[in-house]
Amino acid sequence: MKKRIRKIAILTGGGDCPGLNAVIRAVSRSAIHDYGWEVWGIEDGFAGLIEGRFLPLTIDKVSGILTQGGTILGTTNRTNPFLYAKRKGLKVEYKDVSKQALRFFRSGQFDALVCVGGDGTMSFAKRFSKEGLPIVGIPKTIDNDVPGTERTVGFYSAVHTATEAIDKLHTTAASHHRVMVIEVMGRDAGWLALASGLAGGADILLIPELPFDLKKVYARVKQRSSKGRRFTIIVVAEGAFPSGGEKIVQRKVKDVSQPVRLGGIAHWLANQIEMGTDVETRATVLGHVLRGGSPIYQDRLLATSFGCEATHRLAMGERGMMVGWGKGEFITIPLKNLAGGCRLVPKNHPWIDACRSMGAIFAEAE
Amino acid sequence: MKKRIRKIAILTGGGDCPGLNAVIRAVSRSAIHDYGWEVWGIEDGFAGLIEGRFLPLTIDKVSGILTQGGTILGTTNRTNPFLYAKRKGLKVEYKDVSKQALRFFRSGQFDALVCVGGDGTMSFAKRFSKEGLPIVGIPKTIDNDVPGTERTVGFYSAVHTATEAIDKLHTTAASHHRVMVIEVMGRDAGWLALASGLAGGADILLIPELPFDLKKVYARVKQRSSKGRRFTIIVVAEGAFPSGGEKIVQRKVKDVSQPVRLGGIAHWLANQIEMGTDVETRATVLGHVLRGGSPIYQDRLLATSFGCEATHRLAMGERGMMVGWGKGEFITIPLKNLAGGCRLVPKNHPWIDACRSMGAIFAEAE
Amino acid sequence: MKKRIRKIAILTGGGDCPGLNAVIRAVSRSAIHDYGWEVWGIEDGFAGLIEGRFLPLTIDKVSGILTQGGTILGTTNRTNPFLYAKRKGLKVEYKDVSKQALRFFRSGQFDALVCVGGDGTMSFAKRFSKEGLPIVGIPKTIDNDVPGTERTVGFYSAVHTATEAIDKLHTTAASHHRVMVIEVMGRDAGWLALASGLAGGADILLIPELPFDLKKVYARVKQRSSKGRRFTIIVVAEGAFPSGGEKIVQRKVKDVSQPVRLGGIAHWLANQIEMGTDVETRATVLGHVLRGGSPIYQDRLLATSFGCEATHRLAMGERGMMVGWGKGEFITIPLKNLAGGCRLVPKNHPWIDACRSMGAIFAEAE
Amino acid sequence: MKKRIRKIAILTGGGDCPGLNAVIRAVSRSAIHDYGWEVWGIEDGFAGLIEGRFLPLTIDKVSGILTQGGTILGTTNRTNPFLYAKRKGLKVEYKDVSKQALRFFRSGQFDALVCVGGDGTMSFAKRFSKEGLPIVGIPKTIDNDVPGTERTVGFYSAVHTATEAIDKLHTTAASHHRVMVIEVMGRDAGWLALASGLAGGADILLIPELPFDLKKVYARVKQRSSKGRRFTIIVVAEGAFPSGGEKIVQRKVKDVSQPVRLGGIAHWLANQIEMGTDVETRATVLGHVLRGGSPIYQDRLLATSFGCEATHRLAMGERGMMVGWGKGEFITIPLKNLAGGCRLVPKNHPWIDACRSMGAIFAEAE
Repeated sequence: MKKRIRKIAILTGGGDCPGLNAVIRAVSRSAIHDYGWEVWGIEDGFAGLIEGRFLPLTIDKVSGILTQGGTILGTTNRTNPFLYAKRKGLKVEYKDVSKQALRFFRSGQFDALVCVGGDGTMSFAKRFSKEGLPIVGIPKTIDNDVPGTERTVGFYSAVHTATEAIDKLHTTAASHHRVMVIEVMGRDAGWLALASGLAGGADILLIPELPFDLKKVYARVKQRSSKGRRFTIIVVAEGAFPSGGEKIVQRKVKDVSQPVRLGGIAHWLANQIEMGTDVETRATVLGHVLRGGSPIYQDRLLATSFGCEATHRLAMGERGMMVGWGKGEFITIPLKNLAGGCRLVPKNHPWIDACRSMGAIFAEAE
Repeated sequence: MKKRIRKIAILTGGGDCPGLNAVIRAVSRSAIHDYGWEVWGIEDGFAGLIEGRFLPLTIDKVSGILTQGGTILGTTNRTNPFLYAKRKGLKVEYKDVSKQALRFFRSGQFDALVCVGGDGTMSFAKRFSKEGLPIVGIPKTIDNDVPGTERTVGFYSAVHTATEAIDKLHTTAASHHRVMVIEVMGRDAGWLALASGLAGGADILLIPELPFDLKKVYARVKQRSSKGRRFTIIVVAEGAFPSGGEKIVQRKVKDVSQPVRLGGIAHWLANQIEMGTDVETRATVLGHVLRGGSPIYQDRLLATSFGCEATHRLAMGERGMMVGWGKGEFITIPLKNLAGGCRLVPKNHPWIDACRSMGAIFAEAE
Repeated sequence: MKKRIRKIAILTGGGDCPGLNAVIRAVSRSAIHDYGWEVWGIEDGFAGLIEGRFLPLTIDKVSGILTQGGTILGTTNRTNPFLYAKRKGLKVEYKDVSKQALRFFRSGQFDALVCVGGDGTMSFAKRFSKEGLPIVGIPKTIDNDVPGTERTVGFYSAVHTATEAIDKLHTTAASHHRVMVIEVMGRDAGWLALASGLAGGADILLIPELPFDLKKVYARVKQRSSKGRRFTIIVVAEGAFPSGGEKIVQRKVKDVSQPVRLGGIAHWLANQIEMGTDVETRATVLGHVLRGGSPIYQDRLLATSFGCEATHRLAMGERGMMVGWGKGEFITIPLKNLAGGCRLVPKNHPWIDACRSMGAIFAEAE
Repeated sequence: MKKRIRKIAILTGGGDCPGLNAVIRAVSRSAIHDYGWEVWGIEDGFAGLIEGRFLPLTIDKVSGILTQGGTILGTTNRTNPFLYAKRKGLKVEYKDVSKQALRFFRSGQFDALVCVGGDGTMSFAKRFSKEGLPIVGIPKTIDNDVPGTERTVGFYSAVHTATEAIDKLHTTAASHHRVMVIEVMGRDAGWLALASGLAGGADILLIPELPFDLKKVYARVKQRSSKGRRFTIIVVAEGAFPSGGEKIVQRKVKDVSQPVRLGGIAHWLANQIEMGTDVETRATVLGHVLRGGSPIYQDRLLATSFGCEATHRLAMGERGMMVGWGKGEFITIPLKNLAGGCRLVPKNHPWIDACRSMGAIFAEAE
């Protein structure tokens, strides 16, 4: 029989997103209010677990954070406890420090660990779980691509922010009779581009799941031009790429004389389209803004529900699983069954069909 | 076998809400783009059907309306085709003018009618369907209370607007150490109060499904006061009422000398609380603002999906049904099976549980 | 010669508004950073001064509050130090407790007091100044009606919130072919109604400075109707009133059996218009929402500038004055010269002219 | 004596911005309502004047555009009537087509031309005015850098959008303990960076008027780090540059094999800071989003007032001037006196002082 819980810890890992504080509040309040547990926060994700940085979370401490973006616990997307980078002078050495994390967890007499994170965090959670750490995962990421759940905390707010930006760019595109290329985050999965492109009324959507054919993009731009619609809105995921080509993600070129970062897919595409169609084209990259700000109501509802679900499942004795949402209800998925990698947009997703019915194209290669 | 469709009509009925234009656009685009049908709009809901006011909807006509609040077709919530009010001098006579509506529909050679509306509109759709009109319904209302579907167009935008308002009132409540009573729409169902109250971090939620006990409200206000939390946020649905009492909806008192409208539940409650607890209390009524403005991304996605679903179902030969959302997927419900009245919040809804876990109360009478 | 400053105190008085925290931050940062002074906050306005409730303000303490609505110091609009209400059993006695406030100030060894408030707060500041308290005032109120300055902290955010609400109500008014009456705060001055009505494209504006003629309101509603514009937007200040009539502010009717609050001008007007024109009319009251939320950029700029100005003036030896804005630059006004009452909208204000040029009317009686 | 006006034309030139439609509405309404003039719009700025593309503007035509971003007339920032590019096969020839514009204006029997634009548009207006065209200019640009006026239409909305974005980036910077570099538009003048940086509470502001010293930037980042403030917000104008260095604006590298655009100042700076301080740094470029969306109330007030002022001045017989705002009132400036180039931020501007008092730095080279 599982040990009765008295004290739990919570950490937020990976890139930040709106709704993390809402999760922290929900777990803390539910744990304290429903079960009388003690709750501690771990600073800066797994880095804090490795270094033993804990702080107590009380009702007062989590008061007023529901509406705040970011995470009061801090986070990092550069710490891998199983391959931890340590500098030794100019060299960097990698070692497995997971044992150290386990020691801190045990010496703190914690009965369970709540890990809020994306696919990276969940893969660490899976390994720690295998090594005996009693864990429940809560999926978050603006990319909505954590395997095993249809929704992740942060996605809704990012779609909202992206849609508002597309609305703004519509007016400037229309006034100038321009093609406007809007890049949103999403290295592997096109959920954010798809949802915001559909909500924003995009004419062309380019997502990693459907490698595109530039000629089809040109053709649509020209066709709209010839019909008197003098602007075209293109929403492109960061990781979209031309069929047969490579991903064109923004990259740094480190050079002692003058380091530069080369633009990503949006800037590349804007150049190609201008050259290929002779229509004025502009690129806009919606980067970190998508991660920031107060979570929208929908993320607050999801974050609060996931947080409650996590404590309830722990109280019922479940361990080694992630809470999630699937087919219209809350579900749990054993961490050991979690697929690696990302959850991609299926090619027959209703949103894809809806885009096509609205007359938008994905310009996918045949 | 059903007749092949060539020409359809669409009307929006009942109170307006964000996302109606997105539905009109989606139905029109999908009908024209996917099937090559002709699409006509009917002005002002059933009033326009009775009076034969139709206008053609083209791709151009519905261009740019995705983001606009309201409905370009107009609407009315005062026309009952089966009990139509006609003034004769000072008297008002009621008669059934549904035959007239049928005549206009047939003389226009329409093959199907898309009715976008709430429970009132759907009950008319049900009757017209029985009389042979080929109908598909699309549920909309900020109240989320149309039977047969878990979601309605407009609800999400209203929750968003309400949550933003609650956020604003939080700061003023905290600065003044006040109780703030916030009334949102919802005469019969508490969906909007529940969702925005949970998302806004309300301390007390009062909904029609759970008649409240004023003494419990007082007790919570005093308890928070005594704990040093010097403000309390109460979200109340328009139709919430004290157990054993009556609904206190805003009403007009027509009097030749000076007609007044008496405040509704929020103002009544604010008075009661001030008298019952001696804590300064203010009421705010979020009325028609909840119906207005650009639909939020989520309503655009729902509206577009519902619109496409409606045309696809028509194309497949289905008639006499409403599209909807249930258990995580699109569904259809035969109009003849639609329950009358409103879909209420079940007492064990996860959002209710989540509120309680957060420490909020519903002050329901035992 | 004035004493060199080492330690100052700051209080926020009167109704809260967006930008108070920005003022607190600006005064604190500028005092500490530019001059090395010690800064203390006084809780709950003059109430805290009377009761000796002070707390130290450091750079850390004011970090992150720039964007927050409300005031971290708390405020009250019910404390008059010169006529202080004290309960004695069932009776209330009034006495002058200003000496007590002076004692606390002196025993705290403060060299200056920064009073952030509206006309009420400034009148107390004026009296305390006369009694020897070294004071600088900073004007704030969403009503923009503090004498001696063209702008007050909080006004811009309230205009923004009101304009957004009017935008939302436009779509619902247009869809339903309704008259929409929107009430904004402003008991004596119409600044907020005027600015938001002009920015929101109102058809009729009713402000206290121009008592209105109901017949002109009816005539305009009917004229718009007859021209095919099937909706009318009316923005009315809380304190607007019909010529020859009285103000119709919302009031409580305390009655043991069932206390009610009667609606204010908007509800009264909606009733009158419906009866007088037979056009469907709805009222919306934008109450405390106008005071809440994060200050808009413009209020942050003003609040920060006023805060800096206040410390610079103190450092230069000025006392007994209020900082302000007039004719395009920062000014100071001796508190002793401050007119009592409110600063009203002049009848020839450019915004009034602009409204008229846009075709809007004030329906003022002749 | 000036000819009495019967018919005017209006064009919008240069880059689009929020509030252009509000200007078009104000000019049209005021001209029609106050003076009974006929009003025509010219499509796509000076391009439409050269090509004789006019359309009538009526009260109906400008109804509902107050809140819309962009310009219903279209605009272009690539047409110079005095040096007009014409393609001849592969070659481009430049010629002066201003005479053609004058002919179209005269044959249309227009009595005056309202030119809404930035410094480029005003320089054309100045030349046309010299050649006898009766012109009034209305200044617009999100950069606020038109000479002769303290404010331009569009600036306020851009500051608002930028401030909201900075607010969002604050939370993500704080969660990740990062340096966040935010680039806003402004090739020559730093108004937008200054206003939004002050309103957003930036730690470092870099503007073209104050060439910066990278070492000071590094020092501040490290100092904040060492003080436990684990994030730094840097707002940088597009045209800011290191002292002794060159502007690093985003540029296209056209190369048949793979055309790229190199990142601008923000990306360059992010790289430098990461290398110079070893603190994780991210860049965000707020590009065209700043030009889009519904104008904020303040731009609607300014646009409406400028529009009215323009017609009133024309009615009074004034020609050859630009309306503007200076020292707290509306002014007019003869076009012939308009300085060329941009209006820069003076080094002793109150906003600069306020930033410094808040503890922010400009890192300017000595």
